[in-house]
Amino acid sequence: MKHGGDTLTFKERYNGKIIDYSSNINPLGPPEALREAFERGFSAVTSYPDIKYRKLKGCAGRYLGCSDDEVLVGNGAVDIINTLSLSFRKVVVPVPSFVEYAERAEILGKEVVKLPMKDFSIDMEKLKDNISEGTMIIAGNPNNPNGKRIPEEDVLELQKLAEENGAFLVLDEAFYEFCPEDYDSIKLFKSKGNVCVIRAATKFFALPGIRLGYGFAAKSIADTYYDNWIPWNINVFADMAGQVIFDQTDYIKKTKDYIKTERSYMLQELNRIDGIMPYESETNFILLKLSKGNEDTLFDYLIQKGYMIRKASSFDGLDKTFVRIAVKDHFNNSRIISYIEEFCKIYEV
Amino acid sequence: MKHGGDTLTFKERYNGKIIDYSSNINPLGPPEALREAFERGFSAVTSYPDIKYRKLKGCAGRYLGCSDDEVLVGNGAVDIINTLSLSFRKVVVPVPSFVEYAERAEILGKEVVKLPMKDFSIDMEKLKDNISEGTMIIAGNPNNPNGKRIPEEDVLELQKLAEENGAFLVLDEAFYEFCPEDYDSIKLFKSKGNVCVIRAATKFFALPGIRLGYGFAAKSIADTYYDNWIPWNINVFADMAGQVIFDQTDYIKKTKDYIKTERSYMLQELNRIDGIMPYESETNFILLKLSKGNEDTLFDYLIQKGYMIRKASSFDGLDKTFVRIAVKDHFNNSRIISYIEEFCKIYEV
Repeated sequence: MKHGGDTLTFKERYNGKIIDYSSNINPLGPPEALREAFERGFSAVTSYPDIKYRKLKGCAGRYLGCSDDEVLVGNGAVDIINTLSLSFRKVVVPVPSFVEYAERAEILGKEVVKLPMKDFSIDMEKLKDNISEGTMIIAGNPNNPNGKRIPEEDVLELQKLAEENGAFLVLDEAFYEFCPEDYDSIKLFKSKGNVCVIRAATKFFALPGIRLGYGFAAKSIADTYYDNWIPWNINVFADMAGQVIFDQTDYIKKTKDYIKTERSYMLQELNRIDGIMPYESETNFILLKLSKGNEDTLFDYLIQKGYMIRKASSFDGLDKTFVRIAVKDHFNNSRIISYIEEFCKIYEV
Repeated sequence: MKHGGDTLTFKERYNGKIIDYSSNINPLGPPEALREAFERGFSAVTSYPDIKYRKLKGCAGRYLGCSDDEVLVGNGAVDIINTLSLSFRKVVVPVPSFVEYAERAEILGKEVVKLPMKDFSIDMEKLKDNISEGTMIIAGNPNNPNGKRIPEEDVLELQKLAEENGAFLVLDEAFYEFCPEDYDSIKLFKSKGNVCVIRAATKFFALPGIRLGYGFAAKSIADTYYDNWIPWNINVFADMAGQVIFDQTDYIKKTKDYIKTERSYMLQELNRIDGIMPYESETNFILLKLSKGNEDTLFDYLIQKGYMIRKASSFDGLDKTFVRIAVKDHFNNSRIISYIEEFCKIYEV
């Protein structure tokens, strides 16, 4: 299981509804304003999307605080990562992290170096030894599966280290809006030519079905990006969604508040349970270390109850004592916590 | 201008409606049944698409006459071409043809050989000298921009030549359904492990905005394809569209008949005009050779009248005396022909 979200396989196996705690999507659903945008879809499908995505880039640029020609758009964040990787000889990936970072680079025939993190922090010394001209470093911020932001001083050091060694830094901030407001990498690195910051509609705007990623990079990087990109790679529905979501300020605030409350609640409750250790998270998922059972036994227990969690041993450096769960609506959050507690108690006997 | 369809640039420049004769989309629009499929979209966007696209592959397999595990699906035909190219060392492209064949291979760092065609026929002798183990040959069938199918005996020879030299053959049949029913490449090469046949919703089903390509290849090829493919690369709207369009037998028949009639009409009328020579076409676009003016003067003349055509000098081997136009609805077809005739007469004075 390389990715979460594949409920279909398990729906077929277990009659009934499976609640997906394996992927990390805003539990409040997508902004209502999208409904109208999608209704315009039927008349738009008969034309190619604007090959330059002018309106979409305009909206994303305003939201991100950069100019239109510094905006990258793609068919999901993975498309952006894939297209960026084309320009580099070598890709360095601190692990554990989102499996596609290394996977895409390997598929594209790049030299891939996986750097084990120390307690989910990037090992700057090892990193320094592995980067040079033509290297792309890619790091999750917050990182998946542990859910912690890179501290501001570390991200500044990371950029400096990259710059000094002629390397390029990609920060994957697909979960950015779920996090407490500390620093904004785009503001921090606006004038830097060696940083790309990727964000996505997938998680925060609850649109995994639409495929829309976007981000910031210096104009020269953006130009190369579009030279290498597959033309019309974002379809009209995703294009239209991107022209609506960024204006939803109430929705954005409401989601941030909701996740903050539920995350605290879950962390507090999970910390009480004997047999698991939740990692401190700043986003909408929580990594658990199990001292009772393993990813398979807990997965099997919870799927019988209708909850699908993410086994985490497919992340480099994690073994079968790790699982990842999402932060969803309060009712289900409290239910899944009870079941996890139940599992730990049964396991004891 | 590497591609047609960019009406936005010209709409901004010329007030008013531009009719797009530069891209080749079914003038009857998409099947009505799609409306309902897209309405289901809003509830589907909050989930990832099925990572295995099981229903979509089932529908495409039935339509194409192959089994589900022989179906390739992609975010438009270019995505399929791009992903297939990853597996090969060298890509051989008869030209002129769709510019993305060579472009994607170059971007992926492959060795690219462009083989000039003789009167739009593939030069089999030259081809033989350029293929070996690890080579992918890609040919349009019908070829863009001229619009002629590869004769059955030639396509059989092509496959044989590829097989004897350890090469892989990709037939891009994005315009297949517009053509007279001669042979079906999928039936022809069902048992062959070295052929992929690509088709697309873009042109015939009038869905350029949706991005959906599909095709046939042997299971082992399909397995490698999905190993290399970007996960969830087709969004839920395109996924749903693909589960509806193939059953539209009335729509398919009606479109075939309409295009056949309009294509004959246009070819006949264009043949009458002194100053242009239309190439015999079997699909929904027509390549014109100009003996009066050039692509720029004709483009500028027609855009003033509200019609955008495709300049063809960006195709390898074609100069500024070539343009390509679409076959659209009868009213506009007769109008654009009158304007072309007018242009030729004015040019004489």
